[in-house]
Amino acid sequence: MAAVETKTERGPRNGVDTPKLFATINIVKSQPELARFQFRATNRWIKGANSRSRLEKFKGAGGEHAHQGECVYDADHPAVLVGDDTAPTPVEFLLHALASCLTAGIASVAAARGVTLTEVRSTIEGDINLLGVLGLSDTVRNGYERIRVSFDVKGDAPAEKLKQIVEQSKARSAVYDVLTHGVPVEVAVNAG
Amino acid sequence: MAAVETKTERGPRNGVDTPKLFATINIVKSQPELARFQFRATNRWIKGANSRSRLEKFKGAGGEHAHQGECVYDADHPAVLVGDDTAPTPVEFLLHALASCLTAGIASVAAARGVTLTEVRSTIEGDINLLGVLGLSDTVRNGYERIRVSFDVKGDAPAEKLKQIVEQSKARSAVYDVLTHGVPVEVAVNAG
Repeated sequence: MAAVETKTERGPRNGVDTPKLFATINIVKSQPELARFQFRATNRWIKGANSRSRLEKFKGAGGEHAHQGECVYDADHPAVLVGDDTAPTPVEFLLHALASCLTAGIASVAAARGVTLTEVRSTIEGDINLLGVLGLSDTVRNGYERIRVSFDVKGDAPAEKLKQIVEQSKARSAVYDVLTHGVPVEVAVNAG
Repeated sequence: MAAVETKTERGPRNGVDTPKLFATINIVKSQPELARFQFRATNRWIKGANSRSRLEKFKGAGGEHAHQGECVYDADHPAVLVGDDTAPTPVEFLLHALASCLTAGIASVAAARGVTLTEVRSTIEGDINLLGVLGLSDTVRNGYERIRVSFDVKGDAPAEKLKQIVEQSKARSAVYDVLTHGVPVEVAVNAG
């Protein structure tokens, strides 16, 4: 009976192929070099604040991988910020990245812990004072001053367990890590 | 002649409405509270690692503003990372955000400095070791270890001036600031 329960808990859940997840973790444990990934994008300026990125093949698990479909995304500035509003602003994509990373983690952690989720929704807000970007202040930073995420999570577990799942997702989120701790960025220029 | 030259330099250029940009800066200089913006997104989990964000109305310049069109973006994990690859990964959207923010800045700074650009292209790579995310190491971080951006910039100015334009864009980029310095992120949970 206990064995059956364990098997049930480790079966696919929340759309997460939990057996494959555990198998992947075991393979990487014995071959840690498979964990080295590189994601890539190319970007082309169009006009004004509008540019277009293409998410390219990525490297990892010992090979090169292409996404199934075309992954092309524009960004722009809104009219109130002297853009053409053909697409969202770059900073809004940070909000999408953060919400989607934490949410993917919640689904995976819940599956690994045998919890079936019925709903994960979030709202996310980023406060930014444009005195920095506009060059009108040397004390106001250019980027967001703070970001707030609020999750509504429903599933077949007590509230406390659901909250622990969100905590664990936060503790292992790549985007949360980058946004809260920063990352070294090198910028090279070929001009002429 | 000097006045005409100045006027020419300050006219619209690179698709950037430079007179409007300078007017905006002057208005904000006298009413700095107009510079306070808040960007917002909502996200809904779909299945597995797949979720969908909607970029909502944003607040700023003393009002609420809606984007012209629907701004809805999915994210997922690729098959090699136990996802369905219905969309790019959350961390890839960080690359799009960074490339597009720096590129918008390059076009604006160039316009303000009277430089006409003919091309701005970039490639961007992010290295990530998934031993962190997979919980297989306490010393490997969850997020990118480093990000590299390489720009090709062409325009009617010497290489040195074009490089200075990229430098100034970096110095005033909201996304570059957030990614290199981090930002406080609060996560709240309603569970049940």
